Amino acid sequence: MLTYTVELGERSYPIVIGEGALELLGEELIRLQATRVLICTNTTVGPLYVKRVLDAIRSRLPELPVGVVTLPDGESYKNLEHIEKILDGAVEIGLDRRSVMIALGGGVIGDMTGFAASMWMRGIEFVQIPTTLLAQVDSSVGGKTGVNLPAGKNLIGSFHQPKSVLVDPSVLKTLPAREVSAGIAEVVKYGFLGDEAFIEYLEENVDLLRQLKPDVVARVVAHCCRVKAQIVKQDEKEGGVRAKLNLGHTFAHAIEKLSGYGLWLHGEAVGLGMMMAADLSRRLGYLDEDDVQRVNALVERSGLPVSAPKLDAEAAYRVMQSDKKSVAGEIRFITMKAVGECDIETVDSRTVYETMNAFGWN
Amino acid sequence: MLTYTVELGERSYPIVIGEGALELLGEELIRLQATRVLICTNTTVGPLYVKRVLDAIRSRLPELPVGVVTLPDGESYKNLEHIEKILDGAVEIGLDRRSVMIALGGGVIGDMTGFAASMWMRGIEFVQIPTTLLAQVDSSVGGKTGVNLPAGKNLIGSFHQPKSVLVDPSVLKTLPAREVSAGIAEVVKYGFLGDEAFIEYLEENVDLLRQLKPDVVARVVAHCCRVKAQIVKQDEKEGGVRAKLNLGHTFAHAIEKLSGYGLWLHGEAVGLGMMMAADLSRRLGYLDEDDVQRVNALVERSGLPVSAPKLDAEAAYRVMQSDKKSVAGEIRFITMKAVGECDIETVDSRTVYETMNAFGWN
Repeated sequence: MLTYTVELGERSYPIVIGEGALELLGEELIRLQATRVLICTNTTVGPLYVKRVLDAIRSRLPELPVGVVTLPDGESYKNLEHIEKILDGAVEIGLDRRSVMIALGGGVIGDMTGFAASMWMRGIEFVQIPTTLLAQVDSSVGGKTGVNLPAGKNLIGSFHQPKSVLVDPSVLKTLPAREVSAGIAEVVKYGFLGDEAFIEYLEENVDLLRQLKPDVVARVVAHCCRVKAQIVKQDEKEGGVRAKLNLGHTFAHAIEKLSGYGLWLHGEAVGLGMMMAADLSRRLGYLDEDDVQRVNALVERSGLPVSAPKLDAEAAYRVMQSDKKSVAGEIRFITMKAVGECDIETVDSRTVYETMNAFGWN
Repeated sequence: MLTYTVELGERSYPIVIGEGALELLGEELIRLQATRVLICTNTTVGPLYVKRVLDAIRSRLPELPVGVVTLPDGESYKNLEHIEKILDGAVEIGLDRRSVMIALGGGVIGDMTGFAASMWMRGIEFVQIPTTLLAQVDSSVGGKTGVNLPAGKNLIGSFHQPKSVLVDPSVLKTLPAREVSAGIAEVVKYGFLGDEAFIEYLEENVDLLRQLKPDVVARVVAHCCRVKAQIVKQDEKEGGVRAKLNLGHTFAHAIEKLSGYGLWLHGEAVGLGMMMAADLSRRLGYLDEDDVQRVNALVERSGLPVSAPKLDAEAAYRVMQSDKKSVAGEIRFITMKAVGECDIETVDSRTVYETMNAFGWN
């Protein structure tokens, strides 16, 4: 069992990584002196893992009142209406200020549970048990919570750090291949945002990663969690360097929103978004054609879609203007200055349109 | 113009008190480098003061994009549905991370605007311009935000401090007498929670306060803001001493919830709640009959109702069990150990029922 600590003073917390990490939950709830617990999950993950989570709790705390809220699965349900479902569950089981919510699921469940926990009685504790590769390598760490509004992705939310993240790679066995690939998109991002050695490792091992070969999964999850923990420590509230974790995400948000949330998986949109960021970076003179092909090849070998959906360029531009990184209508992109080196900058709209046109957005 | 600072490290902010404080808003928005502004108000306050606020902004920042959201007036609209109305306004005017929300109204508007600001893009800045006595002496300071759920008052919310509080007593002139009395309830609370000298001042001046005599208003507002600022500094997130600000509020929440939000003004319920807290404290052997009469007399002289509504005692007890101060079903009351001295403690249910019965709750 590996443990990394996200160092945030009194909000510091451990990421525990390894087979059997899930079974540590009972111990963790004793440490937190939880009075009651609410497990938040979805219709896909619940039937697979709620029993295992309940056993983990009951083996140590047989009397603890535990409720379960099961939401429909998918990004299209990541909204305030479904936050209210979690709050209804909190009312029903009678959560108080010393109670704990458990996020059992992928990125959507983690974001929503964290947001609900941050507002219930003005903030209670929560524990992340990520069950997708994407959540294990990225979204479960760092305390960003939120839901979508019709006007944009994650437009509302909070910074609310979990009390611990229990990353158990054994739960990935039931993950569909499409979800594995979506998770690899965020893994690939960790390479291109600042680590050429990790890109090389992925170029050699991406096929084994897609097959969920345990030692490759363990290495990749540990690497991404360690990097994320370092970045979050430097910049908890995304005043600066943390924005680099948004590589590929500006274009991705336009894809997700204009296709209708849920049609494209978040990781799929991020994969294509990185290809577009690479194209944009070439037009700005930072990358050459070989660099761009290297990005494209790794996205493709990850099993991700490499053909963009047909979108209206002006509509996409407007979505990107409403991105949270934008200030006074100026979009800020994460550009690649070289392979494995990123920057944050505003880009003239003509170049952005050229990239969009090249991907068939007119 | 008087200024107190709420000392909270990097979240410190000024409370500016005096006639014309409202006109400082333009200057304040320059200091905050606001890119856009959304004013949140209600149907009662908006027609009276939005123009004055807009003039204050435009005199310094004629080009700044400003939106206005006007909500229906009253506690019964303090819910997530109306938070969404504020968020719709934020989308429409295109608020970004550097934009600012303005709460122009009483406690309900302040709590809702603060909550919306805390979630928009995971938290933007907001400025409080309280327009009721209750908001000026209490709710606009301290960063507690939130809305009600059907299950209870302020069950969801956040701690999100304003960037400044502009307290302009001149706006109280339009306040109905009933709202003035509701505000005085919170003023009286500041006496009984820990300041016998202030109780004596109020016993001498409560009639002048009800008449909004400027020097009395100025003194009372300044006193309450100073005390609140000190308490919030000691205990921002209500781990301890801040809970004393809830004197009378546990019974009050039961009154507000079981009567239907909006029927009793919050301050009216707090006035009666303090009488019940005094009765409870007498039964516990802390106060004598004369002390209780002193509490009752000051509540009555404030123009507040002193007859309790007919409530079901068991239902009221259950509401109080779901109060945020409760842990594992044990209600924590703010009791009066003496006149001007409070404590926080659990009280046996039999004594609580005796108090409820004495007020006609059976």
